[in-house]
Amino acid sequence: MFNEPEITKLETIGEFGLIKQLTQHIELKNNTLKGVGDDAAVINPTNGKVTLVSTDMLLEGIHFDLSYFPLKHLGYKVVSVNASDIYAMNGTPKQITVSLGISSKFSVEAIQEIYEGINLACEKYKIDIIGGDTTSSKQGLVISVTVIGEAAENEVVYRNGAMEYDLVCVTGDLGGAYAGFQLLEREKRVFINNPDLQPDLAGHDYILERQLKPEARKDIIEMFKALEIVPTSMIDVSDGLASEIFHLADQSKMGVTIYEEKIPIDATTYNMARELDLDPTLTALSGGEDYELLFTIKQSDYKKLENHPDFTVIGHVTKPDEGVNMISKGGQKHELKAQGWKAF
Amino acid sequence: MFNEPEITKLETIGEFGLIKQLTQHIELKNNTLKGVGDDAAVINPTNGKVTLVSTDMLLEGIHFDLSYFPLKHLGYKVVSVNASDIYAMNGTPKQITVSLGISSKFSVEAIQEIYEGINLACEKYKIDIIGGDTTSSKQGLVISVTVIGEAAENEVVYRNGAMEYDLVCVTGDLGGAYAGFQLLEREKRVFINNPDLQPDLAGHDYILERQLKPEARKDIIEMFKALEIVPTSMIDVSDGLASEIFHLADQSKMGVTIYEEKIPIDATTYNMARELDLDPTLTALSGGEDYELLFTIKQSDYKKLENHPDFTVIGHVTKPDEGVNMISKGGQKHELKAQGWKAF
Repeated sequence: MFNEPEITKLETIGEFGLIKQLTQHIELKNNTLKGVGDDAAVINPTNGKVTLVSTDMLLEGIHFDLSYFPLKHLGYKVVSVNASDIYAMNGTPKQITVSLGISSKFSVEAIQEIYEGINLACEKYKIDIIGGDTTSSKQGLVISVTVIGEAAENEVVYRNGAMEYDLVCVTGDLGGAYAGFQLLEREKRVFINNPDLQPDLAGHDYILERQLKPEARKDIIEMFKALEIVPTSMIDVSDGLASEIFHLADQSKMGVTIYEEKIPIDATTYNMARELDLDPTLTALSGGEDYELLFTIKQSDYKKLENHPDFTVIGHVTKPDEGVNMISKGGQKHELKAQGWKAF
Repeated sequence: MFNEPEITKLETIGEFGLIKQLTQHIELKNNTLKGVGDDAAVINPTNGKVTLVSTDMLLEGIHFDLSYFPLKHLGYKVVSVNASDIYAMNGTPKQITVSLGISSKFSVEAIQEIYEGINLACEKYKIDIIGGDTTSSKQGLVISVTVIGEAAENEVVYRNGAMEYDLVCVTGDLGGAYAGFQLLEREKRVFINNPDLQPDLAGHDYILERQLKPEARKDIIEMFKALEIVPTSMIDVSDGLASEIFHLADQSKMGVTIYEEKIPIDATTYNMARELDLDPTLTALSGGEDYELLFTIKQSDYKKLENHPDFTVIGHVTKPDEGVNMISKGGQKHELKAQGWKAF
């Protein structure tokens, strides 16, 4: 005897009922004086710190496919993606607002699952949920999050501070999220063609987690403090390494040269890329969604992180007229193209 | 000889090109250290003030109908709606982020029109645009705005401060936005049935403007300062007077009695409601989108605003066990129902 999963239609509890259910257990951990429940949230800024604000919107069918993206993971991911932007300023995320557009196909329990993921990520990154907007949608699921963080003014790291001879570094490894995405898409096609076949995802935990449950690099920001490093410029890898390097070069008015052989790519990413007939380097350059940090440091800071397993030096900053280049494994110089994420 | 209006397809300029076009002329007026162009915006909080945050999401087909809602007005409205939430805390809006989900049917010029409206409202309310997210949408237009404001901590007005005997006041007049909406819907039906008929909107400027170009009550907050009034509780009228009164009563743990004859309804609203077979009082109670301010003041403050044309005293705060009631024009007591806006 099995029980059917509980299904509560949204219309039975209404907008205010839903908001109450979703927000009743929120505990405020930060400098939030008033969270959900008034016209606006009220925050007491920490003396001497600046406020950081970033926002991201995820749309069903563009940023996620609910046929394989678990709702709880989606909630987790949207917080990670936003927190990552604050870490990329060398700051600490403190509050988020969460707006949901929900089509009538969703049950109350489905929305609660999204919120479970959101809550889990907020616990991990120590973020207060302070408000939002919940509305019906005729058009599938819409999630819009704004994150508010803080930093000491002299520790904020912008995209425009890279100087000639600085080292270009990246955390973790790249391309995994894109390899995971391509694997999920392949298995979806297999399933559509033959619904009796089970998806073959075994042994691919790492790249699946990179796609479905990305982590923002809170640990790196803490490490910077411990190692007494303030990067000269920084950005998170959301659109792909090539695009992010272009942003740093463009805003710093500098050139950048990176080395293909230095780009950190996990073996499982490499193998899956090969299996899918993708160039592993291109996967790292243009895949995106890795949420690692790309940053530049002064050469004099190199000693502080040279043997650290989380960091890889992949190149250096050059004069602006040298442009943005990659030296291939064969030693040739290739001009890099800004790819970014083609939104349209 | 007429020139065709200029149409640029979004794909010709791409995501980064679009963001550049939309944001290149932004001038920062407030305490914003860095606006658009990095992973996060950077704000320098004013010493001793608290930060206010609110967010609203508007979805095509739910909150607006592009068959009669001009894009420029839509941009203006989304800023007004958000600014209104900050004024409802007795605060001043300072910054907004704007996220757009855009389907491929929109041209660059169409998006620029939305931004023209956004810019116009930002000038009016003296708000900096500090960031956002621009993405394609398979689901029609999505606009998500987060507004950040500030206030002195001891001047923030919450929903929960109403005390027994306080006077319940409202600014401006109510029901106009809903009457305008119903008129637009009627003319749309006429047009669909007979596309040769021109919509009959002449003489209805006031209620159309209430619906299509609502103003947030910046002037009222300034007047409170000038009159040295700090309301005991406040909320903006977005869902309808009845729903907002319930919020104040519920959060203040009080009862409220209002008088039907006191509810301010403009003559044009009244006449249109009659023409459309709507009860004018119900239009004010449940229509919503007026973005007026509903607030309570101590009786001792009454003298300060009694002859002011912008304010109407519509009732008073009672003991909680008396509930939320309206005394009708005929003198009967009706228990009010929280109607709000049925989102699902």
